Amino acid sequence: MTTPSSIPGAEVDLAALPLREDLRGRSPYGAPQLDVAVRLNTNENPFPPPPGLVADVTESIRLVAENLHRYPDRDALALRADLAGYLGGATGVGLSEANLWAANGSNEVLQQIMQTFGGPGRTALGFAPSYSMHPIIAAGTRTEWVAAPRREDFSLDATAAVRAIEEHRPDIVFVTSPNNPTGQAVPLDDLRLLAAAAPGILVLDEAYGEFSPAPSGVRLLAEFPTKLIVSRTMSKAFAFAGGRLGYLAAAPAVVDALQLVRLPYHLSVLTQAAARAALRHAEATLGSVAALVAERERVIVALRGIGFPVVHSDANFLLFGGFDDPDTAWRAYLDEDVLIRDPGIPGHLRMTVGNPAENDAFLAASKAVAARFGIG
Amino acid sequence: MTTPSSIPGAEVDLAALPLREDLRGRSPYGAPQLDVAVRLNTNENPFPPPPGLVADVTESIRLVAENLHRYPDRDALALRADLAGYLGGATGVGLSEANLWAANGSNEVLQQIMQTFGGPGRTALGFAPSYSMHPIIAAGTRTEWVAAPRREDFSLDATAAVRAIEEHRPDIVFVTSPNNPTGQAVPLDDLRLLAAAAPGILVLDEAYGEFSPAPSGVRLLAEFPTKLIVSRTMSKAFAFAGGRLGYLAAAPAVVDALQLVRLPYHLSVLTQAAARAALRHAEATLGSVAALVAERERVIVALRGIGFPVVHSDANFLLFGGFDDPDTAWRAYLDEDVLIRDPGIPGHLRMTVGNPAENDAFLAASKAVAARFGIG
Repeated sequence: MTTPSSIPGAEVDLAALPLREDLRGRSPYGAPQLDVAVRLNTNENPFPPPPGLVADVTESIRLVAENLHRYPDRDALALRADLAGYLGGATGVGLSEANLWAANGSNEVLQQIMQTFGGPGRTALGFAPSYSMHPIIAAGTRTEWVAAPRREDFSLDATAAVRAIEEHRPDIVFVTSPNNPTGQAVPLDDLRLLAAAAPGILVLDEAYGEFSPAPSGVRLLAEFPTKLIVSRTMSKAFAFAGGRLGYLAAAPAVVDALQLVRLPYHLSVLTQAAARAALRHAEATLGSVAALVAERERVIVALRGIGFPVVHSDANFLLFGGFDDPDTAWRAYLDEDVLIRDPGIPGHLRMTVGNPAENDAFLAASKAVAARFGIG
Repeated sequence: MTTPSSIPGAEVDLAALPLREDLRGRSPYGAPQLDVAVRLNTNENPFPPPPGLVADVTESIRLVAENLHRYPDRDALALRADLAGYLGGATGVGLSEANLWAANGSNEVLQQIMQTFGGPGRTALGFAPSYSMHPIIAAGTRTEWVAAPRREDFSLDATAAVRAIEEHRPDIVFVTSPNNPTGQAVPLDDLRLLAAAAPGILVLDEAYGEFSPAPSGVRLLAEFPTKLIVSRTMSKAFAFAGGRLGYLAAAPAVVDALQLVRLPYHLSVLTQAAARAALRHAEATLGSVAALVAERERVIVALRGIGFPVVHSDANFLLFGGFDDPDTAWRAYLDEDVLIRDPGIPGHLRMTVGNPAENDAFLAASKAVAARFGIG
């Protein structure tokens, strides 16, 4: 970034600002955005939107652009009805727009949940390692964060999880299924145990739900209507990461409660129109899921063949291990023009399942990295 | 909204949920979104985007839609450079993208500021009546809110304001110029006094800056680099309310600080591309400002002619008084198919300056309302 010394305030250092003490010394969240040939670091869907979707998004935007001088529908009712139709169809649960809520990415959905049910004096508990934004959003909303452990293989031990919930009595429990960055889904029976144990809210983060054979926790909404919130996203299976559309399903009263903290007109007419267009092409987009699952299984076999231990995955990414120094190994992949993710788990790196050519490039790089570090 | 009783959680009442105690009994912010012929309630620009802008937005979206499966530029650097170019040109201050930050509406900008410099144990002070989202966002970020008074005519008394700042020592001072919902801009010399007095951050909300003859507070950034943040929006003069683009200008270190609380990828590729297209048509869009200012002056004269007292305005709206019961009067306007705003100020209502036909309809309704309530 150019920061000419002539611009106002160029001489001021961050330390000179009156920012909150708990923010001092922290770094912004975010994977490096590097211009690398093979980018397998943010769990994007590698398949571009089909031409029909691009045309539909474009035409939808053309129509709403004529009214850009007007504020959007603050309640995004049409979009929520479309999301209810999709999610209801995918899970076999009858949902209406009253069950659905949407925001600019699931991060904003989660932030609204924490503002409503967490905050100062309240506690949220998650099972680490998991999605690293959960504790960051907790900090941003001044919600105390408690990290409970997983099994050695990163799967969730429901009995131990229930004990942790009973011990800490958190206001909000976070469960990620399939878990990011490790990959395993949580069976419905385990989710039921966790929901029963949760004294307050259970947020089930299903960002990668479409890639998993496990049934969605949406099926438990009727059983735990005052507790369960299922968070989803269009960033992954829907290949809509650039459109930033996260959503949740819950009891209508939960959706009403979120209205008390949501910023008015938070979803632009652009986002609402484009997401509705993308949902109309769900069949085409979600067609990529089967291909990615097949590629995932192919990469697992090949990675293990090279000699890497690979964690079981129900998602569109793989956590694999065997590294004495993951940071150096991450750079070695970058040297091979393959950008993957260092999720901060000792010994491990995470790769997003890409298209066949990207996965071939990743596997070729993996052979080179294995040879360089004496793995296998 | 349809809420069939068969959907999950339909039977649950809001009171049964474990929401934060300070949210209980509150109502969501937001003016009624009613389907009325003449809508003059949310200070939108009444002139639709010119066809060239619509075409440019559409083509820009078509291009980015091909990469919707990829996350957006998290730092929105190109958009911030364009905003720096516009704001620098408008204010005569040399700005770079390092001075600019953008989010989904100025509400999100303000929320990020409060998360960074406010929060639990910290205080924000504003001069009431002003933009009602300021105290709401303070509550949402658990920042204590102090309301200091304005003069009887709603203008800001800089001497009294400095005294209030010295008395309360707030971490954040909010000044709205022109002030919403009352209309008056704050002169640069008064802003300088307020910035000098502020112990922490001074947020200058210039959402309606383009309609005002007063110079922008951006000119004071070099003088108060550790204190001053100028918040702006494309919702009003830019006729881009539906696109949801708020931004701010500040020292680069302030922009760096906000990265610690912003949600990653908060701005979609759609928003970034559409806002950049809208900025390319700034000259055409901002051409409406002079027309609206002329209409504002016409409506002031006519309203006063009917017998309504009208507050001086440097914005695209008018606060006018003389009502014993503003709520009943607001409904009387609605009976005339004119939707205006009840800002909760005793005796007053607020109207957005519309296009000439809308203003004629408003003035005709005003005559009917004046006759009905014996005003003038």
